[in-house]
Amino acid sequence: MDRRNFITLLAGATLVGGCSKSQFEDKNININRNRKVRLKLATSWPDNFPIMGTGVVEFAKRVKEASGGSIEIEVYGKNRLVPALAVFDATSSGNIDIFHSGPYYWKGKNIALSIFGGVPFGMSPIETMSWFKNGGGLELWREIYDRYNLYPLLGGNTGPQMGGWFRKKIESLADLQGLKMRIPGLGGELFSRLGVNPILLPAGEIFTALERGMIDAAEWVGPALDISMGFYKVAKYYYSGWAEPGSILELTFNKHSWNKLSKEQQAIIEMASNELNSNMLYNFQSENSSALEKLKREGEIYIDKFPDEVTQKAKEESKKLMEEFASQNRDFERVWKSYSDFLNKTKEWSNISYKSYLEDRG
Amino acid sequence: MDRRNFITLLAGATLVGGCSKSQFEDKNININRNRKVRLKLATSWPDNFPIMGTGVVEFAKRVKEASGGSIEIEVYGKNRLVPALAVFDATSSGNIDIFHSGPYYWKGKNIALSIFGGVPFGMSPIETMSWFKNGGGLELWREIYDRYNLYPLLGGNTGPQMGGWFRKKIESLADLQGLKMRIPGLGGELFSRLGVNPILLPAGEIFTALERGMIDAAEWVGPALDISMGFYKVAKYYYSGWAEPGSILELTFNKHSWNKLSKEQQAIIEMASNELNSNMLYNFQSENSSALEKLKREGEIYIDKFPDEVTQKAKEESKKLMEEFASQNRDFERVWKSYSDFLNKTKEWSNISYKSYLEDRG
Repeated sequence: MDRRNFITLLAGATLVGGCSKSQFEDKNININRNRKVRLKLATSWPDNFPIMGTGVVEFAKRVKEASGGSIEIEVYGKNRLVPALAVFDATSSGNIDIFHSGPYYWKGKNIALSIFGGVPFGMSPIETMSWFKNGGGLELWREIYDRYNLYPLLGGNTGPQMGGWFRKKIESLADLQGLKMRIPGLGGELFSRLGVNPILLPAGEIFTALERGMIDAAEWVGPALDISMGFYKVAKYYYSGWAEPGSILELTFNKHSWNKLSKEQQAIIEMASNELNSNMLYNFQSENSSALEKLKREGEIYIDKFPDEVTQKAKEESKKLMEEFASQNRDFERVWKSYSDFLNKTKEWSNISYKSYLEDRG
Repeated sequence: MDRRNFITLLAGATLVGGCSKSQFEDKNININRNRKVRLKLATSWPDNFPIMGTGVVEFAKRVKEASGGSIEIEVYGKNRLVPALAVFDATSSGNIDIFHSGPYYWKGKNIALSIFGGVPFGMSPIETMSWFKNGGGLELWREIYDRYNLYPLLGGNTGPQMGGWFRKKIESLADLQGLKMRIPGLGGELFSRLGVNPILLPAGEIFTALERGMIDAAEWVGPALDISMGFYKVAKYYYSGWAEPGSILELTFNKHSWNKLSKEQQAIIEMASNELNSNMLYNFQSENSSALEKLKREGEIYIDKFPDEVTQKAKEESKKLMEEFASQNRDFERVWKSYSDFLNKTKEWSNISYKSYLEDRG
């Protein structure tokens, strides 16, 4: 009380331009935070892209607010500063300070990185976060990114993604044979092993291709982001997914830019990234819920699970795929061991808690 | 760049005790953050209580770090400063600045508050957070707490809790009739409608009562906190739960203490509480997973769901209970409407995503 009043008085004195020895002692404590820092951040999403793009802008605002304006992060949407998928290299080389994207995109650099982005039949978002935080995931990620001069923070999670929109009902594994499906990444690799022909198409061309029957199916994200793509108008069968049970996004620093920050600035940015990370999950939950309601109202759509036969086969193929990668790449082997050990342990708990509860609630 | 160098120079000048007009202009921006604040926080948990107690200590550390030492929060465990359940009143009156506890405990003040703590057959943690953040939950909570001179922030979530430890297998609703069960709160109210005789016992007496057969069952939290209570040694049947699908904890400020903080300090504390809030969920996930593994190794325990008959009856009774409260209390009616509308919408999404995924993964 005594002390608080004393310091309030000093603050008051500063306002009117006073100057005394004690006052400077007080200021010295805060020397680092007063050093203004301006950082450039580039994302892989268009400006104002729902949830992901807007989340990063909110992150930068929070950092500015909590640092009293001393940390300014300038956010550049997709292609404004560097091409969408050049953000990794641009940050690695120090051309920019930070990027917001997904580890999912960097499997060409090192297939082990795809594990940090999420794995078919892998961990749910809460499980994933427990692994990063308490199961050694974050340490492994930082160890590998360090080779690229990068320092990753968690930057969000999409929650479980849907399996995709299909023009025809899928009743068996046979129905998938030869289907042309827009699906990238590990999911595409997995579907190819189920007999699907995975097609890569830029976002802007998917709807027309699906409408004209040039492709039979398309996977995107989930209701919140799928609705504006209009797929539901031309492909009525919407399947629950297991290829992307929670894709992880990253907020990754150039290591030098990170190390230049004071402990205090690092703490502010870390807390803001953790807030971004969890808020994105909550925002996807509410946006997906609203969009699903709207989809059901607007279109005659059929929502279902893939047939058991398809899911079982996908599970087997996914396991084989992971084992193949592990045998080819030492990093993948190590990260996969850590990841799958944690998953095997934590899913026992998830099954008797989250799964049991959602089943009982109905 | 230009500006950054300029300010660095100013900071340098301050170090050697310089004093100029420009310098003060720079300081004025940071006037509030430099005002050192010391806040007293009391919890309802013992010092170093796993996950919950340690989480609050970590929160205080993060706030100190991110504020460059300008916000010091002194954490007092259960009964050190005020009795465990007197923290609400002590903060309301301004005797202390902050408390960490659960809205669960304040239903005697206003039954509507119990909804903010979590509801039988209610929302999962991610759903709950979406409601607080995007569905109006936080606004309603703050509106009601305002009457008590309080300003709540989110302070954690236990994740789904187990249904309890039973000495005998429960095979039907009939098996519950007349059972003496240690279970407090809304859960106790609900179990009483299933024929159970709810008993209130302090933590330290539960094990002995269960061991001697003075009670037939006991509900606590989940593996992480149950294991050290030793229940598994004397009651082998461990049931998945639906009475507490994710109990919410709070970090609640005296309104005056909150309002005195600068915008910057508020942002730091809000981010730290959001970090505490989500980390607790992740920590419960990993601790529950490890403890479950250990329980299975150490004891011969039987983990199961309650029989469908019991769950169905509980669901009906829970609905009736909520409707009764709503008819008796205007606040409850309003909060319940907001809560249950959101739940009905969001569970459609959860069922085709989280539930479907956990079932498919197996």
